[in-house]
Amino acid sequence: MRRLPTVSDVAEVAGVSRQTVSNVLNTPAIVRPETRERVQEAIASLGYRPHASARRLRTRRSSTIGVRLDPGTDGMSGSLLDRFLHALVERADRSGLRVLLYTAADEDAEIAVFERLLDGADVDALVLTSTHYGDRRIPWLVEHDVRFVTFGRPWGEHDTTDRSHRWVDVDGRAGLHAGTTSLLEQGARRIAFLGWPVGSGTGDDRRNGWRQAMREAGITDLAGLDLQVEEDPQDLGRGGRAVAGLEPAPDAVVCASDSLALGARLALGPDVPVIGYDDTPLARALGFASIAQPLDEVAAAVLDLIGSDEGVHHRLLTPRLVQR
Amino acid sequence: MRRLPTVSDVAEVAGVSRQTVSNVLNTPAIVRPETRERVQEAIASLGYRPHASARRLRTRRSSTIGVRLDPGTDGMSGSLLDRFLHALVERADRSGLRVLLYTAADEDAEIAVFERLLDGADVDALVLTSTHYGDRRIPWLVEHDVRFVTFGRPWGEHDTTDRSHRWVDVDGRAGLHAGTTSLLEQGARRIAFLGWPVGSGTGDDRRNGWRQAMREAGITDLAGLDLQVEEDPQDLGRGGRAVAGLEPAPDAVVCASDSLALGARLALGPDVPVIGYDDTPLARALGFASIAQPLDEVAAAVLDLIGSDEGVHHRLLTPRLVQR
Repeated sequence: MRRLPTVSDVAEVAGVSRQTVSNVLNTPAIVRPETRERVQEAIASLGYRPHASARRLRTRRSSTIGVRLDPGTDGMSGSLLDRFLHALVERADRSGLRVLLYTAADEDAEIAVFERLLDGADVDALVLTSTHYGDRRIPWLVEHDVRFVTFGRPWGEHDTTDRSHRWVDVDGRAGLHAGTTSLLEQGARRIAFLGWPVGSGTGDDRRNGWRQAMREAGITDLAGLDLQVEEDPQDLGRGGRAVAGLEPAPDAVVCASDSLALGARLALGPDVPVIGYDDTPLARALGFASIAQPLDEVAAAVLDLIGSDEGVHHRLLTPRLVQR
Repeated sequence: MRRLPTVSDVAEVAGVSRQTVSNVLNTPAIVRPETRERVQEAIASLGYRPHASARRLRTRRSSTIGVRLDPGTDGMSGSLLDRFLHALVERADRSGLRVLLYTAADEDAEIAVFERLLDGADVDALVLTSTHYGDRRIPWLVEHDVRFVTFGRPWGEHDTTDRSHRWVDVDGRAGLHAGTTSLLEQGARRIAFLGWPVGSGTGDDRRNGWRQAMREAGITDLAGLDLQVEEDPQDLGRGGRAVAGLEPAPDAVVCASDSLALGARLALGPDVPVIGYDDTPLARALGFASIAQPLDEVAAAVLDLIGSDEGVHHRLLTPRLVQR
């Protein structure tokens, strides 16, 4: 890497002390005009520019946001966070902010990374993803007075009124409600929900959207239609087998993810409507409908909240049903 | 964000000048033992740590690698670069290096970003992706004596002996050769190649692997079997239609990408062997074979070359055929 000119180089060329160069840069009024001119000529001839690290040192701000890059799961939900990262970096770039990536194997390791990054003033703020109920990172950051926003709500009780930290999330319940309602309008009645076992905040939220739309249509006996499978990247057929086992066959299936929807599509064929979640390339490739998270809006809201000292503590955005 | 203790805070608590604190930190031998002890006590009681920006300023090294995050294409090749980024960040983390992301709409914009990053000494080195023949970024970086490695070969004539810059790439020709040979061994003779129009370095390299394996098996009339389609994320069926139009039908199809392979698989059904490229979730989901780039090895080689002043200028790695 080329060596950049330093204050010492400027001082040598101008025949003055380093302190005088520093005075010209920071308090020019106290320097004699002839000296000031000589230093400014040296600065111009060398192409010297005050160092960003020096600027950061003065201002204690690095204009940098830290984001954890999750281990490559290579699956569908991993790809969602990658797409969020793209949206965030593009938006941040336009605001003159930089994004620094880090990895961490678990919450304790991530808290150790926070300490390193904050000690070094390497980041001004953090964006957290993959939040969950009882997330230890959040109280640590609150206690240490660190500026941060999570993509993901707190997932505790009363989470949408919890003011302990700022967050942005997408209303999965509204998404599944819209998807299920659209199938009901097309005449489907026996609509199955293919999701994860009860207990994950995200999954239960999506299930509730389906339940609510079904109840609104007067369909209250959902017992056999609520299919719960563990997702397994090595066995994408698991959801398909659950759906194929339904007796009688369903009119349509709404799913908690596109990979579950893929299983349903392959098991039932293209004549049974299937709706996935996250609008991944899989949904486009196989031509099934899917619920798209507005990742560009999420990124904009995260950056908005991260820079804000106002009272708004969260944004719950509405996803969009992509029909196919 | 919490305010970190500064040299001034230490000076105040110890009742000495800022210069004395600086001396204790940098040239302790010149400070009287009693004073040194007082300053060290103040450092300990305040939890002061020399600022990372200050360290960087002294050493002119930020231990940071700059990487462009390409606009989210949301397709299959975009996901490959995301997977490379994951591998790079994980490897870099283990070496104490950080990865700073930037975006740029085109080559000129990216060169402007280089200038900003280098002026600020914000990065020590750059990793470039999506290189192509005539890439203007490369001569700019060479001319400005910037340390960089490309994931992607120069793609000019004599590229593998070109010593103008360091690069790592994956031997797509070897990958298609292995895939085609494996199909020949299974008894297939009429093996079509489904790729992009002639003219892209990557695509032609992959096509040449298929050609070579076919010639080695004594199959020289390849005219009707060399299918060339523009990939269109909005119309994934294009490759499938080209394959379905073959008369007589092919025994098997090797493809330049998984999204092309998806089209072939959907058009021909599961009984005709299809081999894709990049081993994406699509290949796993639909159960077709694919050629996997060794992204973790690529990341390791990139970091190896970026830190090296030795004579090795490139690494051409061999991909792996994932049978299904």
